[in-house]
Amino acid sequence: MTVSVFRQEHFNAAHRLENANWAQDENAAFFGKCNYPNYHGHNYELIVQVTGEVDPGTGYVMDMKKLSDLIWEKALHKFDHKNLNLDTEEFKTLNPSAENIAVVIHDLLRPHIASANKLKIRLYETPRNFVEYPA
Amino acid sequence: MTVSVFRQEHFNAAHRLENANWAQDENAAFFGKCNYPNYHGHNYELIVQVTGEVDPGTGYVMDMKKLSDLIWEKALHKFDHKNLNLDTEEFKTLNPSAENIAVVIHDLLRPHIASANKLKIRLYETPRNFVEYPA
Amino acid sequence: MTVSVFRQEHFNAAHRLENANWAQDENAAFFGKCNYPNYHGHNYELIVQVTGEVDPGTGYVMDMKKLSDLIWEKALHKFDHKNLNLDTEEFKTLNPSAENIAVVIHDLLRPHIASANKLKIRLYETPRNFVEYPA
Amino acid sequence: MTVSVFRQEHFNAAHRLENANWAQDENAAFFGKCNYPNYHGHNYELIVQVTGEVDPGTGYVMDMKKLSDLIWEKALHKFDHKNLNLDTEEFKTLNPSAENIAVVIHDLLRPHIASANKLKIRLYETPRNFVEYPA
Amino acid sequence: MTVSVFRQEHFNAAHRLENANWAQDENAAFFGKCNYPNYHGHNYELIVQVTGEVDPGTGYVMDMKKLSDLIWEKALHKFDHKNLNLDTEEFKTLNPSAENIAVVIHDLLRPHIASANKLKIRLYETPRNFVEYPA
Amino acid sequence: MTVSVFRQEHFNAAHRLENANWAQDENAAFFGKCNYPNYHGHNYELIVQVTGEVDPGTGYVMDMKKLSDLIWEKALHKFDHKNLNLDTEEFKTLNPSAENIAVVIHDLLRPHIASANKLKIRLYETPRNFVEYPA
Repeated sequence: MTVSVFRQEHFNAAHRLENANWAQDENAAFFGKCNYPNYHGHNYELIVQVTGEVDPGTGYVMDMKKLSDLIWEKALHKFDHKNLNLDTEEFKTLNPSAENIAVVIHDLLRPHIASANKLKIRLYETPRNFVEYPA
Repeated sequence: MTVSVFRQEHFNAAHRLENANWAQDENAAFFGKCNYPNYHGHNYELIVQVTGEVDPGTGYVMDMKKLSDLIWEKALHKFDHKNLNLDTEEFKTLNPSAENIAVVIHDLLRPHIASANKLKIRLYETPRNFVEYPA
Repeated sequence: MTVSVFRQEHFNAAHRLENANWAQDENAAFFGKCNYPNYHGHNYELIVQVTGEVDPGTGYVMDMKKLSDLIWEKALHKFDHKNLNLDTEEFKTLNPSAENIAVVIHDLLRPHIASANKLKIRLYETPRNFVEYPA
Repeated sequence: MTVSVFRQEHFNAAHRLENANWAQDENAAFFGKCNYPNYHGHNYELIVQVTGEVDPGTGYVMDMKKLSDLIWEKALHKFDHKNLNLDTEEFKTLNPSAENIAVVIHDLLRPHIASANKLKIRLYETPRNFVEYPA
Repeated sequence: MTVSVFRQEHFNAAHRLENANWAQDENAAFFGKCNYPNYHGHNYELIVQVTGEVDPGTGYVMDMKKLSDLIWEKALHKFDHKNLNLDTEEFKTLNPSAENIAVVIHDLLRPHIASANKLKIRLYETPRNFVEYPA
Repeated sequence: MTVSVFRQEHFNAAHRLENANWAQDENAAFFGKCNYPNYHGHNYELIVQVTGEVDPGTGYVMDMKKLSDLIWEKALHKFDHKNLNLDTEEFKTLNPSAENIAVVIHDLLRPHIASANKLKIRLYETPRNFVEYPA
C-alpha cells in the first residue's frame, strides 16, 4: 500500500532575479520587474510530498508533525523573513527563481527522508505561478 | 484521448488515532493530540480522480453528477457526521489515519468504476495535511 | 486613524448539537445529522478582528504575533483536538453551535484586549457555514 | 534538472452541452441542466504545466510572463467572454465539455511550446469539477 | 446576543450586460466584453448573511440547512444553469449586473426571513469582482 | 439602492519594519523577524470596496474595469515588485506595516473616487494576517 502524504508550509522572503555573468541591461531586459535592484518579495507556499509504504502499526507513511518540523529545521529556517540573495549561502551565486528554490529545498530535505521514500516539492511563488521538482 | 476528471466532495467526521495493540502511554506518546481519548474531528475534502478515454458521443470520461452520486452512495454516507472509530465497520479495528481513510474510500469505489478506468483518491484532513492513493 | 487588524487561526474539534432539556427524538428531529450520538467534527477557521488606533511609533494597532499567542493561551488551547461536549467547561451545558462557540471565544478574549479596542469574532464551521459575533 | 512550471489563468464563457446527432429529448435526458437551451456559463480556471530542463543561465524552464502571453494569444482570446457553441470555430461541432475544452486548449498551445518540453492542461469548470489532459 | 450567520451557495448562469434603451454601439463602448451578443457566463458564489438573536434553546440564529433550502427554493432555482437575460422574469428588462442580481436575490429572500432579522447578500461574479447589498 | 462593489488586485513587494527613531536593539526586540536588516517580502492581496448608489442606466455603482485601472495607476504601480522602504516616497519615513500601507493606498485612491461614494481598503499581508481601513 503505497501512499503519498503532503504537508503545506508558509514562509516569506525578499529576492531579485539576476544572472551575475550578464550585463545589467541584459538582466533588466530578460527579467523585467523581477530584476528591480532593491528586491521585491513573496509569500511562498511550499508543499512537500513524501511517497512510501503505509506502516501497518501506525497507519502513517510518515508523521506529519515530524515532517513539518523537519521542513523548518533543515530548510525553511534559512529562508523565512530573509533576503534570499543577500542572507543565504544557497543563493549567493544561484539565481533564486522558483525553479531553483524548489531544487534547493528538495536537496536540503532529501538526506533526511527515508531512502525508500520518494520526495517531491511544489512551490507557489504567487497564487498563479508555481513549480514542481522532480517533474 | 485519455483525460482525468476530478470531483471534489466534502464530509466531516470525528476520529482519534490509536493502535489497539499498544499500551495507552505508547499511543499517547506516538500520536500526541490525535490520540486524545474523547475524539476530535475534521472537515474532510475528498477529490476523486477517474482517468479514461473520452467518449466521442458525450465528450465525457464519466458523468460528474453520477460520479458524485456514486461517491456518496458507496462511500461517504458511511462517514459523514459520524465517529469513524465508533460508528463504522471500516475503522472498528483499522486506525483512521488519513492514509487509511483514503485507501478505504478507494476500495469502496473501485468496484463501481469502469475497469478500464484508473481511480485515484486525494483526501485533505486539514488544509495543510493531505494524502493520495494510489501514489 | 482607526484600523482593523485580523488574525486567522485553525483548530479542530469533535462536537454534537443537543439541548439537554429536550427528549432524544426532539433533538434528533431538530438537529438532524448534527445530533448523531457519537459526535462528528470540524476544522474550524477562526478570524479575530481587533479595531483601534494605529500607534504612530509602531505602525501597529496590535502586534499580530502577540494576538496569535493570546488567542491560543486564552481560548484555543481549551478546544483544539478536543471533544467540545465532553472535554470543556464551556460546553458542558451550553450547546456547541457555531454561534455559541463564537460568543464563548469572544468572552474568553475580551478581558485581554485593550478596552479602547473593539473585538469581533468570525468562525467558519465549514467552508460554507460561518458566523460573526458581535453582529 | 527537470522541473514543471505552472501558470494559472482565468476566463469565463457561456456554453451548453449537446450532441447534435441525438434527438432533443435524448440530449435533455443525458446532459440534464447542462443542456438547457439558452446556455449557462462558468468562470474557468486554467492551469498550464510545462515540464523541461531548467536553463542554467536563467534559472527558468520557461519565462512565466511569456507563457501567460502565449496562453492568451494562442488560446484564451478565442474563448473569453464568448459563447463557446456559437462564437468559436473549435466548438461549432464539438461538444464543449470540460474534457474537450482541455484537449482543444492543449492542441492550440502545443505547437508553440518547445518540442523538448511536456505540456499538460488542468481546467476547472467549477471549484468542484475539473479535468486534466493528457492524463 | 446578536450574531450573524452566513451560508454560501454556488450557481452558474449565462448573461450579457446591456441597456435596452441605448444604441448597440453605445452598449458595446460602455460594457465592452460584457456586452458580447451571444452571452458569456460565470460561476457565481452567493453568501447570505442573516443577523439576529441566538435562540437560547437551540443555539441557532437560524437553521443553516433551512436557510440553504430557502435560498434554493425562493431564488437560485430560477437562475442556476440558466440564461439570466432570456430565461428569467427578473432580468427580462433589468440589466443582470452583479449589483442588480444581488438586489434581486435579496428581494426574493427578504419576505421569507424573520422580520426581526437583518439580511445581507454578498455575490461573487468572479473571484476578484464581488458586491454586497445592502451596503 | 446603495450597494458595495469590491475589486481584488495582487502585488508583491519587499519591506522591513523599523522605527527610525529607535535604537537597533529596540527595533529588533519589538519587530522580531520583521526587522531583519536585508528585507523580506510578501504577496499582497488588496481588496478595494466602493459603496454608492447603483446607476439605473448601467446597473453599476462603478465600472470594475475602471476601478481596476485606477488602483494600478494611482497606487499599485508605485509598490509592485518594489522595496517599500527604499523605492517609494510614501514609506521613506513611514513604517510599512500593513496598517500603514492600507492607509496610504486609501489616501492615494480617495481623490479619484466620486465624493458621494465611500471607500474602504482590505489588505492581506499573508493569508492569515490582514487589515481594513477605515475600520
